[in-house]
Amino acid sequence: MSFDASRFKNIFLNRLASKLIQHLALHDMKKNRENSKKSGGKKALVLVANGSEDIEVVATVDILRRGGVDVKLCSVEKNDEKPLTCANNIQIVPDLHIDDVQGQEFDAVIVPGGSKGTDKITACKKAGAILLDHYKSNKIVAAICAGPIALSAHLCTAEKNARQHDVTCYPEAAKLLQKQFKSVKLDQSVVDSEVNHRRLITSQGPATAIEFGLKILSRLTDEKKAEEIRTKVLA
Amino acid sequence: MSFDASRFKNIFLNRLASKLIQHLALHDMKKNRENSKKSGGKKALVLVANGSEDIEVVATVDILRRGGVDVKLCSVEKNDEKPLTCANNIQIVPDLHIDDVQGQEFDAVIVPGGSKGTDKITACKKAGAILLDHYKSNKIVAAICAGPIALSAHLCTAEKNARQHDVTCYPEAAKLLQKQFKSVKLDQSVVDSEVNHRRLITSQGPATAIEFGLKILSRLTDEKKAEEIRTKVLA
Repeated sequence: MSFDASRFKNIFLNRLASKLIQHLALHDMKKNRENSKKSGGKKALVLVANGSEDIEVVATVDILRRGGVDVKLCSVEKNDEKPLTCANNIQIVPDLHIDDVQGQEFDAVIVPGGSKGTDKITACKKAGAILLDHYKSNKIVAAICAGPIALSAHLCTAEKNARQHDVTCYPEAAKLLQKQFKSVKLDQSVVDSEVNHRRLITSQGPATAIEFGLKILSRLTDEKKAEEIRTKVLA
Repeated sequence: MSFDASRFKNIFLNRLASKLIQHLALHDMKKNRENSKKSGGKKALVLVANGSEDIEVVATVDILRRGGVDVKLCSVEKNDEKPLTCANNIQIVPDLHIDDVQGQEFDAVIVPGGSKGTDKITACKKAGAILLDHYKSNKIVAAICAGPIALSAHLCTAEKNARQHDVTCYPEAAKLLQKQFKSVKLDQSVVDSEVNHRRLITSQGPATAIEFGLKILSRLTDEKKAEEIRTKVLA
C-alpha cells in the first residue's frame, strides 16, 4: 500500500476543524453566560406566528440578545409548525412552542406586528393568558406595529388598568386602538407607559423596531447597556 | 345516537377556515404577481451563511420583497445546511443553495454583514465567481457592514475598475478597506458608487439596513417605488 498523503492531510484537517469547533462552542457558551450575567439573567419571550412582520421579529430579538437578554422566539401556531413564514416570506425557526412555556415566568413578553401574525396572537388564548399574567405581575408587556391590537384584545377586556395606558402603533391601527387605550400617540416612534407600576411599551413599525428593542433593553437592564448596543448597531 | 351540535359546529368552522385560507392564498399569489410585474420582474440574490447578521439579512430581503423584487436567500454553506444560524442565533431557512444558481442571472447580488458570515462568503469561490460575473455585466453588487470585505476579496483582486469605487462599511472594517477601494466614507450610511457603468452599493450596519434596501430598490425600480415602501415601513 502506497503512502497516501492526502488521506493524512484530511485526517489532520478534520481533527483541526473539530478542535476549532469545540473551541468556538466553548467561547460562545462563555460569552452567552457573561452576557446573561451582565443583563442580570433577564428573560424575554417574543410571540410569533405565520405572518409576523420579518424585521419587527428579528430586530427586536437581535437587539435584546446583543444586550445579553435570554430571548425565546415562541410560536403560537398549532402543531408547533416549523419553520414559520413571516409576512415577507422569510422563514424562521422558533425556539419553542406556546405549550412549552405554560407557567414559566419572563421579564418581558413581546408581540411583533404583521397583520396576519397579530391576528393569530390575538386569537390564541394561551398567548392571552401569558400576556395578562405578566401584565398583572408588573412585568414588561410590549408590542409593535399591529401588535398592540393583540394587547388590547387580551388586556383591555380583562383589566381596567390597561385602558389607562398611552400607546403607539402602525398608523392604520390607530382608529381601532383609540377606543381601547387612553390615547394613541402617532407622533412618537416608541411609547413607554407606566400606569400603577404596570408597564406597556409600544412602537410603530419596521423602521422603529431597533428603537423599540433598545427601549425594552433599557428597561430590562439600564440606559448604559442600551446606549452600548445602540452604538454597536450604529443607531 | 344523539344530535351532536358541537360536532356540526366544528365541521362548519373547519370548512369556513379552509375556504378562508384558500382565499388568502389566492390573494397572496395575485399580490406577488402584481408586485413582481410592478418591479419589471427584477431578481436579486442575497448570499447568506452561518453568522450572517440577522437584521441585515432580513431587512434587506423584506424591503426588496415589499418593492416587488423576486429575492432569493442563497446559502453558501457546504451540504446545503438548513436552517442557517445568524450572528444573533436567529435561525432562518435559505431559499436555495449556491450550487442551484450557477449560470443564473440576477439584477443584484447582495452580501450582508456579520463577521463570521462574511468570512464564509469571502472564502466561497462560487460566491466570488457570481459577484465578479455580475459586476462585469454591469449588474448591481451590494454589501453592508463587514460585507464589503467579501467584495474587496472577490472583485478588487480581479478587476482594477473595482478599486476605483468609494464605499462605506462597519467602522471597524474601514482600515482594511481603505487599502482596497478609492475611499471609505464613514460619514454616509449608504454609498451608491458608479464607475464606468459598474455599480457598487455599500452600507454600514444593522441600523442602516433599511436605507440600504431602499437604495438598492430605487436602482432596481425607481425612486417612486422606493419612496412608497419607505412610507409603508415608516422610515
